[in-house]
Amino acid sequence: MAQEKKFIKFDYNYMMENYIGSEGITEKELVATKMLQKKAVISLKEDRVSNGNMLGWLDLPHNQKDVIRDILSTAKQIRKAEYFVVLGIGGSALGIMSLFQALCHLHHNELKRSKRKAPKFYVEDNIDPERMQALLDIIDLDKTVFNVITKSGSTSETISQFLIIMDMLKEKYGVNAKNHIIATTDETSGNLINIAKKEDLKTFYIPKDVGGRFSVISPVGLFPAAVLGMNIKDILRGCLDMEKSCRKANMFENMALASAVTQYIMYKKGKNISVMMPYADSLKLMADWYCQLWGESLGKAKNLYGETVNVGQTPVKAIGVTDQHSQIQLYTEGPYDKIVTFINVEEYRSKITIPGGYEEFPSVSFLSGHTLNELISSEKKATEYALMKNKRPNRTITLPAVNEYYLGQLMMLMMLETAYMGYFLEIDAFNQPGVEEGKNATYALLGRKGYEAKAKELRSSKPKSQRFIIE
Amino acid sequence: MAQEKKFIKFDYNYMMENYIGSEGITEKELVATKMLQKKAVISLKEDRVSNGNMLGWLDLPHNQKDVIRDILSTAKQIRKAEYFVVLGIGGSALGIMSLFQALCHLHHNELKRSKRKAPKFYVEDNIDPERMQALLDIIDLDKTVFNVITKSGSTSETISQFLIIMDMLKEKYGVNAKNHIIATTDETSGNLINIAKKEDLKTFYIPKDVGGRFSVISPVGLFPAAVLGMNIKDILRGCLDMEKSCRKANMFENMALASAVTQYIMYKKGKNISVMMPYADSLKLMADWYCQLWGESLGKAKNLYGETVNVGQTPVKAIGVTDQHSQIQLYTEGPYDKIVTFINVEEYRSKITIPGGYEEFPSVSFLSGHTLNELISSEKKATEYALMKNKRPNRTITLPAVNEYYLGQLMMLMMLETAYMGYFLEIDAFNQPGVEEGKNATYALLGRKGYEAKAKELRSSKPKSQRFIIE
Repeated sequence: MAQEKKFIKFDYNYMMENYIGSEGITEKELVATKMLQKKAVISLKEDRVSNGNMLGWLDLPHNQKDVIRDILSTAKQIRKAEYFVVLGIGGSALGIMSLFQALCHLHHNELKRSKRKAPKFYVEDNIDPERMQALLDIIDLDKTVFNVITKSGSTSETISQFLIIMDMLKEKYGVNAKNHIIATTDETSGNLINIAKKEDLKTFYIPKDVGGRFSVISPVGLFPAAVLGMNIKDILRGCLDMEKSCRKANMFENMALASAVTQYIMYKKGKNISVMMPYADSLKLMADWYCQLWGESLGKAKNLYGETVNVGQTPVKAIGVTDQHSQIQLYTEGPYDKIVTFINVEEYRSKITIPGGYEEFPSVSFLSGHTLNELISSEKKATEYALMKNKRPNRTITLPAVNEYYLGQLMMLMMLETAYMGYFLEIDAFNQPGVEEGKNATYALLGRKGYEAKAKELRSSKPKSQRFIIE
Repeated sequence: MAQEKKFIKFDYNYMMENYIGSEGITEKELVATKMLQKKAVISLKEDRVSNGNMLGWLDLPHNQKDVIRDILSTAKQIRKAEYFVVLGIGGSALGIMSLFQALCHLHHNELKRSKRKAPKFYVEDNIDPERMQALLDIIDLDKTVFNVITKSGSTSETISQFLIIMDMLKEKYGVNAKNHIIATTDETSGNLINIAKKEDLKTFYIPKDVGGRFSVISPVGLFPAAVLGMNIKDILRGCLDMEKSCRKANMFENMALASAVTQYIMYKKGKNISVMMPYADSLKLMADWYCQLWGESLGKAKNLYGETVNVGQTPVKAIGVTDQHSQIQLYTEGPYDKIVTFINVEEYRSKITIPGGYEEFPSVSFLSGHTLNELISSEKKATEYALMKNKRPNRTITLPAVNEYYLGQLMMLMMLETAYMGYFLEIDAFNQPGVEEGKNATYALLGRKGYEAKAKELRSSKPKSQRFIIE
């Protein structure tokens, strides 16, 4: 396709001193990161080929030939179901949620079957009992297939959901319960693979060197994507093209590197907030996916040398134009503590013209004859301009269109940017030690064996004072 | 109802030095705000009775008797429609979106008509052409009623949507188009009231002294709420009870004041991020509503004396437990730059027990016999504890249940907290001057008459350099 010769565009002019003065980045500051850039690109290259570095996601675009075949043939069957439900949380949920929002009809589940060509789709990424009940209220088990996803196989939330669903399926279908559930997990270790073997479930595997938040282009994201009718080969092709284009140790030729460098300099200048603001409803959840990637990868207490650093930029999701009426006041006038990344779409998949009819009201009729497309594009340009005029750093990623290929590019761009930023900050971007305390406290509160000491610690923690409670 | 004798609970123990050490608030710091507290409470009381202060929302809980009657009788008719669509953005959308999410079934639009007792519901708060097309794909105009909401009557986004819909309605129904659309706007000024008069539309009015982000308890939120079958009198009763309980000039007896004081002290200590994290899917959009309220009200360049201050805390929305698998790593280990406000729910409206079946896997079977309710509550407690142990300030608002009455309390609490915080920061919490630049630039880009100078300015602004663009 001619269109696909195009590439995502990354424009960071309005991060620069030339436009936003003292709040901006100087040429000198860019040059000062030259060694850092070189080191990061070399580190990534070296770490990629040595073991145990959790960089397996870099190779997923080209090393999944057999997996893809299996995904496609399984998906072809599952697509006939009326309901398809993912049970997963965090990295097992956000990738496919964002692809679903981006590539399926915005009211997919409300379309007639003849118009949607794929099952109704739900991602259950919470354990709120009302949410689970609400799902059970609307699906028909007979016509439902579940995909339970947890790499470790020990995610309490997902396993709880699985136990509830498996119990219902077994009660109703006995040994045929397995026809209603597919497991995506580690191939050799963890509870879920053991259970899957016992129950003879169809399984997909998550490579050991791919972490949850980088797993969208493994079967975690690709299998549900295929069930929903997406072209998963195009997603991977987009990833591959982006990955290849981001290998040079020079930010002027490497989009991910440029993206990370500008974030890094701004973070060092005290911008501790990074806003992701797509101008398309279809990309709303892409901002959620980015928030996990950026927040969980880079928010770290210790650096690689064990020193306490407490780094990390807080990701914030916003949506254009909607949040112009919510957050732009703050972004324009509040503290100089953030950068904004816009995602722009060149060609929307619909075009709607604003009709006339009220010529007697000039402040209405100036809109007539324009399209919504022009309106949303103008508002994006205007917002970018207004922020720049107020010396607020902002940058724009432009997608030629929202399709599988460009989303593949976009996701790989963001994963690479995150990896490079990890090298700049000298932290491990691929672990999440900070969630252990909460997990252990949960186990203790639920009376899990082996957590008696933690339970004791909780019981003996300083009681809350009534003085600081109002009711 | 006995349950309703209860009140929302506000617990800020884990903001205090006693628990989180040097990151916490000292008794001395609380005492030091005593005069500030007194001044704020007096100012609010005085400003409330003098004109032009945009504090009309304080009186909405008790001064809308006739309005309520009109809302209820109109809603009774409209409820028979199959589709009900709000056209609005920002403050005209977020309030009803959050109430809808909180009080209707989580899959309301996918329930059979017999199970939902109200029309399918959509809030169109963006101008993405794909979004508008997606709506038109699924509704049937014959069975649809629209509620167009803009106080000023000049919101480009909403007026554009209105022009598109009105054109379709007129084409199909001629003069009977008016049976399909209701306008909520200012009673005397603006385009929408003029158009409504011309077209003989049914109208509801937004009081002049109530701004968009405080308008959820005016017809802006209450009319759609009534159509959806909510008990709007209970919402207002909750607001009134909260408002009355928050008049004392002493933070130990005034929840909104305590809430604002703790935010203020933390903001002064450099916590420029405020996370709102409900542990309930039903309250997810309540966090969005709060983000507008907090961000747009308090993010200001100038204080009341015209001095440049560039204040404002950036609100961030998160959801428990889901975001434990996305953001908690950062909140626990990243910079000490934020406070977290949890919203806790005592009684969920469903209860689901986790069944047994895999006794051979102890790290699975410890979950069996617990309810999802216990699991989500334990995780909330565990997260709060883990943050505290890591010296991360956090506080908890507990709702006895999610219903109209307690949501009324919650919304009034947050609006009052915002107002008090505005007094502390000495800024005008009720305007939004920072959005003008972007609006004017949009007008200029669309060629609106009167904006020729701005268009010229845009044309002559420094062109972007190809050096900072990669594609």
